[in-house]
Amino acid sequence: MIEDKNQQRTKLSQFGEFGLVEHLTKQFEITQDTTFKSIGDDAAVLDFKDEKVLVTTDIMVEGVHFDLAYMPLKHLGYKAVVVNISDIVAMNGTPSQITVGVAVSNRFPMEALEELFEGINQAAKFYNIDVVGGDTTSSQTGLILSITAIGHAAEADLTYRSGAGEKDLIVVTGDLGAAFMGLRVLDREKQVYLVNPNSQPDLEPYSYLVERQLKPEARTDIKKLLKDLEVVPTSMIDLSDGLASDVMHLCKQSGTGCSIYEDKLPLDPQLINVCEEFNVNSTTIALSGGEDYELMFTIRMEDFEKVKHNPHLSVIGHMTDANAGMNLITRGNHSIPLKARGWDAISEDEDAE
Amino acid sequence: MIEDKNQQRTKLSQFGEFGLVEHLTKQFEITQDTTFKSIGDDAAVLDFKDEKVLVTTDIMVEGVHFDLAYMPLKHLGYKAVVVNISDIVAMNGTPSQITVGVAVSNRFPMEALEELFEGINQAAKFYNIDVVGGDTTSSQTGLILSITAIGHAAEADLTYRSGAGEKDLIVVTGDLGAAFMGLRVLDREKQVYLVNPNSQPDLEPYSYLVERQLKPEARTDIKKLLKDLEVVPTSMIDLSDGLASDVMHLCKQSGTGCSIYEDKLPLDPQLINVCEEFNVNSTTIALSGGEDYELMFTIRMEDFEKVKHNPHLSVIGHMTDANAGMNLITRGNHSIPLKARGWDAISEDEDAE
Repeated sequence: MIEDKNQQRTKLSQFGEFGLVEHLTKQFEITQDTTFKSIGDDAAVLDFKDEKVLVTTDIMVEGVHFDLAYMPLKHLGYKAVVVNISDIVAMNGTPSQITVGVAVSNRFPMEALEELFEGINQAAKFYNIDVVGGDTTSSQTGLILSITAIGHAAEADLTYRSGAGEKDLIVVTGDLGAAFMGLRVLDREKQVYLVNPNSQPDLEPYSYLVERQLKPEARTDIKKLLKDLEVVPTSMIDLSDGLASDVMHLCKQSGTGCSIYEDKLPLDPQLINVCEEFNVNSTTIALSGGEDYELMFTIRMEDFEKVKHNPHLSVIGHMTDANAGMNLITRGNHSIPLKARGWDAISEDEDAE
Repeated sequence: MIEDKNQQRTKLSQFGEFGLVEHLTKQFEITQDTTFKSIGDDAAVLDFKDEKVLVTTDIMVEGVHFDLAYMPLKHLGYKAVVVNISDIVAMNGTPSQITVGVAVSNRFPMEALEELFEGINQAAKFYNIDVVGGDTTSSQTGLILSITAIGHAAEADLTYRSGAGEKDLIVVTGDLGAAFMGLRVLDREKQVYLVNPNSQPDLEPYSYLVERQLKPEARTDIKKLLKDLEVVPTSMIDLSDGLASDVMHLCKQSGTGCSIYEDKLPLDPQLINVCEEFNVNSTTIALSGGEDYELMFTIRMEDFEKVKHNPHLSVIGHMTDANAGMNLITRGNHSIPLKARGWDAISEDEDAE
C-alpha cells in the first residue's frame, strides 16, 4: 500500500557497527541544558540538579506492535518516541532525553534506517528532547525498537497512579478510540491491497483516525494547562492500553472503585461514523481501544468548575469506594462491571457476535 | 549440550501482559537510596541530588549476541546486566539502576523467562543495583534483551574517553582474550554435540575461559582501587569490542596515537594453552577478542610507580603523538599498525591462513 519509492539501497553490511551508529546519530543536535554529555562515550551524562529523575522503557516489535505494510518507517520512529515520552508526561514530568536501541535484519537497506532515525529526530525536535544514547545491532528477522525515555520533575509536581481519593473526578484529555479504529481502517486497506495491488485507497474519510494511529502525539501541553487552571491532579496515567484497562490501574493502586459514564466518553464524529461502518460499538472501542496516548487523571471534586468548560478536558466519571467495584454506567443507567480487554479481545468479541 | 531438565512448562499466553511483568519482577527488592519509586507506575523516579546521572543502553539479540545452545538463560540475564553496568563503570561512575526490556517468542515457557529474570536478579544483588522498570512483550522469533543502565558520579570523578594526554600510560585490568576463546571452546563442543548428542564434554581444562564467556563480571572494584592508590585516570573505556578497537576509541577521542607492547599484554596461562590447541595467535586474540569487560584507562607517567606492582593492573603501552599512528610493538621490536577487527574478522583471517 505504501510503496517504497526510494530506489537507493545501501547495504547495512557496508557499515561497521560504529560507522552505523555514527552515521545514524550525527543529525541529532543537543538542545537540553540537562544534557551534560551525549552520544560518543560509554554512557551519556545528565544533570538534573535538585529535580527528580524519571525513567521509562518500552520495546516495540515488528509484527506485534507495528506492521510495516502500513506504518512508514519515519512514522514508526516518531511514534516510538511519543509512546515513551507519554509515560514521562503521565508522571506530570517533563521529558528531556531518550536512548534508542534498534535491532534490524539485513533485509533493510541503510536508507530504511535513515528514515526511521529521521522520524526519531523529528519527534526529538518537536518535543525538545535530546537523543543521548544508541545501540544498533543486527537481528535475524524483523525490526525491534527499544526506547528509554528520561525526564524530570520537581517532587511537588510528581503525580502517581496511586494518589486518587474515593470521590475524585476522572478526567480524560482529547478523545478516545480513534487510534484503534485508524488501525482497523489501515488493516482493511492492506487486505484490499493484497487482493488488488492496483487499488487506490481513499483514506480521506478516515484521515483523523489514520493520523491518530500513525502519528500520535504526547500531551506535553497538559502540565502547563493544569498549572494555568490551578488544578493539582491527584493521580495520572496515559491511555496506552485502553481506558478500561488503564482506569483499573488507577483504581487498583489508589485503592478505589470507579464509575465511568458512557454518555460522557469523548468521541470524535469520524470515530462514530466509522464504528457504524464497521458495525462495532463505539463505547467498546472507546473503552478498549488503546494507543490514544491521551492522559487520564483524577482531580478533587471542588476543582470541577475549573475544568468543566475546557475543550481539552472531559470529566467522564468519578472514583468510588473500592467495594463498589469498577463500573460503566450505560446511557440506559445500568451499571455493568468494566472489563479490561486488549485489542485481541475486541476482535474475539466481534467474531463471537 | 546444556539440557533443560526443567519439566515444568507454563505457556506465556496464560499470563496477560501485566500479569507477566508483575510475576517476573516481584522478586526484585529495592535497596538503593537513589531509587525514589520503582516499578509500578508510568515511570520510575530516581533522585541523584547533586551528582551527575549516567545512562547507557544495549540491545542483545539471540543468534547474534548469544546462542542459547550453550548460554543458559540465567547466565544470559546475568551477563546482560554486567555488559551494561560495565559502561557505567567505564565512566568511573557507580551503577545504581537498570530497566529491562524483553521481547520473547511463545516457544519459551514461563519457566525460561523466570530463569532469565533470576539471572538478572542475581546480578542486581551482586552489584547493588535496583531493577526499576521493565517491558515484556512477544516477538515472532527468538529472544531480544534490551537493558538500560543508570548510574551516578560526582563531576570530578567522571572519566571520559577524550581525556588522555600524549605521553600518558595505557593500563588494563585483569587479562585479555579469555572470553573470546571461551566462546570458541563452547562452539566446538556444540558442533561435537550436534554430531553425537551422547558425548560428555569435559570443560574442566577450559573452566576459566568458559566462565569468562558465560559469567563475565564488571570491574566495579577499580574506582575504589584507583582512589586508594591516589591515581586519577585521564581517560577510560571498557573492553567490550576488543583491545585494538577500544584503544582506537581512546586515541581518536583524545587526539593521540598509541604504542601497545605485545610482551606486556596480560594473558592467562589457560588462554595461552588453548590458543596453542586451536592453533591461533594469542596476541591476535588478546587484541581482537571482545567481551572481556575489563577496563582500559590512561594515567599520567608520574603515576607509574603507584600502579606498577598491582596484581589487578598491567601497563601495556603509552599514548603518542597522533601523527605516530596506533601501533603494536612486537616482541621482535617491530612496529606494526593496529587493526580494529571484530570477531568475524578473526575467523576470516584464520580461514585465509
